[in-house]
Amino acid sequence: MRRWTITLALASTTLFAQATNDKSILGFTASNAAKEHALEAQFDAKLNRDDLRNWMQRLAGRPHHLGSDYDRQNTEFIASLFKSFGYDTHVEEFQVLFPTPKKRLVELIAPEKFTAKLFEPPLPQDATSGQTNEQLPVYNAYSIDGDVTGDLVYVNYGVPADYDELERRGVDVKGKIAIARYGGSWRGIKPKVAAEHGAIGCIIYSDPRDDGYYQGDVYPKGAYRNENGAQRGSVMDMPIHPGDPLTPGVGATTNAKRLDRKDVDVITKIPVLPISYGDALPLLSNLAGPVAPPDWRGALPITYHLGPGPARVHMDLEFNWNMVPCRDVIARLPGTDRAEQWVIRGNHYDAWVNGAADPISGQVAMLEEAKAIGELARSGWRPKRTIIYAAWDGEEQGLLGSTEWAEEHGDELRQHGVVYINSDSNARGFLEIGGSHTLERLTTQVARDVNDPERNVSVLERRRDREQTLATSEEARKEARERQLIRLDALGSGSDWTPFLQHTGIAAMNVGYGEEGGGGSYHSVYDSFDHYTRFVDPGFPYGIAQAETTGRLVLRLANADVLPLEFTTFADTLSRYVEELTKLAQTTRTEIEERNRLIRERAYEIAADPTKTYVSPKPETPAPYLNFAPLQNAVARLQQSAREYDRAATSIPSDAPNAASRETALDHALMHIEQALTTSQGLPRRPWFRHEIYAPGFYTGYGVKTVPGVREAIEQKQWNEANQQIEVVAGVINNYAAEVDRAADIARGRAE
Amino acid sequence: MRRWTITLALASTTLFAQATNDKSILGFTASNAAKEHALEAQFDAKLNRDDLRNWMQRLAGRPHHLGSDYDRQNTEFIASLFKSFGYDTHVEEFQVLFPTPKKRLVELIAPEKFTAKLFEPPLPQDATSGQTNEQLPVYNAYSIDGDVTGDLVYVNYGVPADYDELERRGVDVKGKIAIARYGGSWRGIKPKVAAEHGAIGCIIYSDPRDDGYYQGDVYPKGAYRNENGAQRGSVMDMPIHPGDPLTPGVGATTNAKRLDRKDVDVITKIPVLPISYGDALPLLSNLAGPVAPPDWRGALPITYHLGPGPARVHMDLEFNWNMVPCRDVIARLPGTDRAEQWVIRGNHYDAWVNGAADPISGQVAMLEEAKAIGELARSGWRPKRTIIYAAWDGEEQGLLGSTEWAEEHGDELRQHGVVYINSDSNARGFLEIGGSHTLERLTTQVARDVNDPERNVSVLERRRDREQTLATSEEARKEARERQLIRLDALGSGSDWTPFLQHTGIAAMNVGYGEEGGGGSYHSVYDSFDHYTRFVDPGFPYGIAQAETTGRLVLRLANADVLPLEFTTFADTLSRYVEELTKLAQTTRTEIEERNRLIRERAYEIAADPTKTYVSPKPETPAPYLNFAPLQNAVARLQQSAREYDRAATSIPSDAPNAASRETALDHALMHIEQALTTSQGLPRRPWFRHEIYAPGFYTGYGVKTVPGVREAIEQKQWNEANQQIEVVAGVINNYAAEVDRAADIARGRAE
Repeated sequence: MRRWTITLALASTTLFAQATNDKSILGFTASNAAKEHALEAQFDAKLNRDDLRNWMQRLAGRPHHLGSDYDRQNTEFIASLFKSFGYDTHVEEFQVLFPTPKKRLVELIAPEKFTAKLFEPPLPQDATSGQTNEQLPVYNAYSIDGDVTGDLVYVNYGVPADYDELERRGVDVKGKIAIARYGGSWRGIKPKVAAEHGAIGCIIYSDPRDDGYYQGDVYPKGAYRNENGAQRGSVMDMPIHPGDPLTPGVGATTNAKRLDRKDVDVITKIPVLPISYGDALPLLSNLAGPVAPPDWRGALPITYHLGPGPARVHMDLEFNWNMVPCRDVIARLPGTDRAEQWVIRGNHYDAWVNGAADPISGQVAMLEEAKAIGELARSGWRPKRTIIYAAWDGEEQGLLGSTEWAEEHGDELRQHGVVYINSDSNARGFLEIGGSHTLERLTTQVARDVNDPERNVSVLERRRDREQTLATSEEARKEARERQLIRLDALGSGSDWTPFLQHTGIAAMNVGYGEEGGGGSYHSVYDSFDHYTRFVDPGFPYGIAQAETTGRLVLRLANADVLPLEFTTFADTLSRYVEELTKLAQTTRTEIEERNRLIRERAYEIAADPTKTYVSPKPETPAPYLNFAPLQNAVARLQQSAREYDRAATSIPSDAPNAASRETALDHALMHIEQALTTSQGLPRRPWFRHEIYAPGFYTGYGVKTVPGVREAIEQKQWNEANQQIEVVAGVINNYAAEVDRAADIARGRAE
Repeated sequence: MRRWTITLALASTTLFAQATNDKSILGFTASNAAKEHALEAQFDAKLNRDDLRNWMQRLAGRPHHLGSDYDRQNTEFIASLFKSFGYDTHVEEFQVLFPTPKKRLVELIAPEKFTAKLFEPPLPQDATSGQTNEQLPVYNAYSIDGDVTGDLVYVNYGVPADYDELERRGVDVKGKIAIARYGGSWRGIKPKVAAEHGAIGCIIYSDPRDDGYYQGDVYPKGAYRNENGAQRGSVMDMPIHPGDPLTPGVGATTNAKRLDRKDVDVITKIPVLPISYGDALPLLSNLAGPVAPPDWRGALPITYHLGPGPARVHMDLEFNWNMVPCRDVIARLPGTDRAEQWVIRGNHYDAWVNGAADPISGQVAMLEEAKAIGELARSGWRPKRTIIYAAWDGEEQGLLGSTEWAEEHGDELRQHGVVYINSDSNARGFLEIGGSHTLERLTTQVARDVNDPERNVSVLERRRDREQTLATSEEARKEARERQLIRLDALGSGSDWTPFLQHTGIAAMNVGYGEEGGGGSYHSVYDSFDHYTRFVDPGFPYGIAQAETTGRLVLRLANADVLPLEFTTFADTLSRYVEELTKLAQTTRTEIEERNRLIRERAYEIAADPTKTYVSPKPETPAPYLNFAPLQNAVARLQQSAREYDRAATSIPSDAPNAASRETALDHALMHIEQALTTSQGLPRRPWFRHEIYAPGFYTGYGVKTVPGVREAIEQKQWNEANQQIEVVAGVINNYAAEVDRAADIARGRAE
């Protein structure tokens, strides 16, 4: 009979500096924690920068987008690596819809003629930039085909609020072509909102203010986007659902039932193409009409006008709507006594072009981590839980590989999935981490134990020092100074965690380094080995830091005596969200009231400059008070349950009877608990998204909306829906609290 | 025996909307208020837009800077107008030092060659832009002569905080030439601070972000500064003292004792020249070194670097240090029974070039106002108090005309001066008004009675509607919605009120319209009749609004039964200032503490990017707690005294004995009361500035510092001085409160 105590240290009041000397690991007994530290030291010693460099050079050596020949070669290379590391490896293939360009034309036809180059020229300083035969040209995938001509209107970032501003100035996009700049939202939002407002076409360009010379010297002199650089990318309506457009909700296997393309709801309604700022300048400088509002102005040397016209644009786009194979590499290291619990770790390997940063920098760090864990396994150690590595294909098109796999294996995943750990691009700098808030202590303890390669302190301390030095409010300073735990960013979308967390209900996180290495190579031909090794992470020190970080996460999750989840921080985070929501409702109500008053008093009209067009806003229906009580009560109950769980889990007698079976029972209670945050009906108007706490915003695309059902109902002033969603989420949280209670009972030895 | 009640309505709780129906006038009995309204209606009827247009065309017809032939012609023209209006008019002449360029050279000598054009070319669309023979070239007056060569460093706005940022990045200007952009401070601060940091030369350019195409279409297509436009202007160290550099504190009469030029303390220490953004581009694009911080970046299509070098610049400047005549036109309309009380109204008439906006737009509105008042006087009405109109010369060089006149007539002014009303440039838009806070109700009531020419509501309501629609915080919204009175901006410097308010202690205000008509013609050859009538105030409706506004101020001050000063608003404003100061001290103390802690913990160093130079800040001596009690007690006492005065002034029995002599006695108590806010020793290190509540900032130049002795001591972390200055200001406020008490006693009939 083993003796164990789960070291939770939850109510610790030790100051941060002391906490960094703490060697405890959540979920481990003290003696197993010591063994784990020893194992991790062995793990670290096996990591080698040269592998990262060599594999990046290999994998990013040629363009390797979904369906390309080199992508297939990379599949095989990655699979062979996993096999050589000792993993049980296979390739799982799906058939997906992937349009590539047949015709691309953007031309200014009045008041002068100009045809957009739509081309990123080879550079002598960039060895792979000349592989033009294999490069996917600059385009947006899942744009509809279309040949349109219209006057141009500048719509800023093209988010809904921008159209309110246009309306104030008497400008609309109906029957016109909208030109939006990248940024401010995920790109797919721009054609979606433009189409909602009646635009017939959409151009997206990279303004040098956000992504070009305003940020730093441009490539090849510096790291930033030059006048020819353009951003490829998918514009599939992913906030509805990611994955293959033809097979929503099910795996895109060869024989899967497929939608007709005309019935697909995630292809854009209007044609859309991305262009460089070199191509955008003649278009924008030929706009007249009102001067753009100050925060709409970019860094081109012109006066930004809104239009419409006199710039008149012709766009002609046509695509090959082909089916292509999408191949995931799945590598498994079976666990010992808890083999039925899967710790899943993934990073995609497909790119838009050569993709040295995106995604190969993350892929090679994951491969190195898998290599070291494989070597540990060969030397006799075995994980308690099963570890699954996944190299995803088709992420760039809309998380195709991960989504199809998660859909295909949904039942197994709900049964076996414990945590999904994602990564993507990696760069020099600071630890950036988001995820389910039950994982804050786990990630904090890992960050405490990883050394920053530049400053020889823990990456936790470096991150905290940065937050402290950047904090501008006393509140932020206090948080950075006093809060022991990393505050995880809530996850929206943008990489492969989405099908696991938001569709399947598996606790997830996304981990990477960044902020120091950078530039403007994103989704361009210049995202190359040459660019990466000059600017992004020369020498790969942060590739190694990444492997040390995600490797520890995998190892601790795989080895823990009991799964290292914590509920008090999650409950407190929920309580913050509910407070935000009540404030949002209050502010929205007050603003409507105030605006209606000013409209009645003609204040907007009186204040406006009569020499300029000004359309006063319309009065809105006053907002009701919402009943937040169910949500507030549910969160209060969860806070109570979480405290009880902590007490139970920390006070388990050191020689409890049936310790092993109690551990297993507790694990089973914990491993499925995130699923209690999902509902079978999912979010309003997008049932694929089932998580009631985290989702990408319907109008942000990547950016998270927490408690999305309630928050988006308030934002969109759907008051009945807001009240209904409060009830839904309250029910979910109450169920979740009941699960926490059950786990506490098991910890106390009261349950079966 | 007359019956009178001063209508003060001080404690009114009426809402704004009702208040706008109020016809009371502060300082007038109800029946005299009715007469005053009738008089003002006659006044309005005499105003004629054609005069403004004709006079502007005449006065701005040729370049007319200080000392020029056309300036002299304008003197005579303005004097003849005042005479024709019936004023007792004379020209008062001073002899002042005014350097004009002999040699101007700015050239890039490495890494490539470029010579700055320093020239604003004639434009066919601008009739006076070709008068090149008479134009003062682009330069900064009171730059020292100098021939310097050095590497270039970009210093953003060139204010002290910018040099802290440079230091963090390991860049200094010692032995180098600083290039600063206009904005962020008054221009004279830039060479002053550059010299304090060891620079050997200073270039100031107009960045298109602040003043060029980023703001709007450039001239002549639009109103904004084009690539050749440059901003002339004085760089005399006016925060030390304005006026003729050779005669600080005394009138620059022919026989005045003059300083030797080498002993003058307001000429720059290093040569300085302004350039256009066309001339700046080759200089800035040849800078390397660190990339400028995000908020330092302008709108030129380059990556902004800090340097130093490789841009290497040669500047060679030489000036004719001539004595020139400075001629003020002084026009007097004597009062009846209170002729010894002077209401002074001024606007300068000299310009840098043609100066249609600056200052002729204000000058012609003042002339029109004077014309109408002259006609009223001819038709039988006479002001109770004496009205003095002043058209100042030499404002652009450093408030020369007004300062020399105020210095020369200091004793008379302290004896007779009641209020000084200033104006300068005027444009289409909203009423903008600053001044002594005893004048808030007077100005509010005037704004209530002037009609906005564009929207047919009062200019008060239009201003308030604008504040309401622009307010972003609930606090700002509430203030805009509920506060009846205009909140006057405190006056710093930048025009001719300074010698009256801050040197002599005469309550002052500055009045103008703006924000809708605009552009970038400031201090360039393109500030022309053509530019003004196309863009700034076409048809002169706001010239008329300005005359209606300032005319009412003059008439009410001249006619009031008792001077319309109010003390509760002033006391409450002071109380806000003291609250700001206590917060500033608190914040400064906390920030030093926090920064020192982060320095001790090496947090800045750890957070910094090791591939970039980063110099951690030095620890500072902790800040002590300051004793604000004397100031807080003084303000509390003044609040009490002000309330007592209100009670006394509103409850004067309607048939008090000796009403006339009591009125006069009360007036005499009130008219000198602003002088109680001055001290004979003045502010630390700049004794010319004697007002203890309002001053231009030592490091802002134009921008106001309220309670400057205390505020600047805290900002500069001179803690002993801060405590001393608290005592000084507390003493001043206590004396002021005693004066208010004395006025209350007079109102009650207790004093003689």
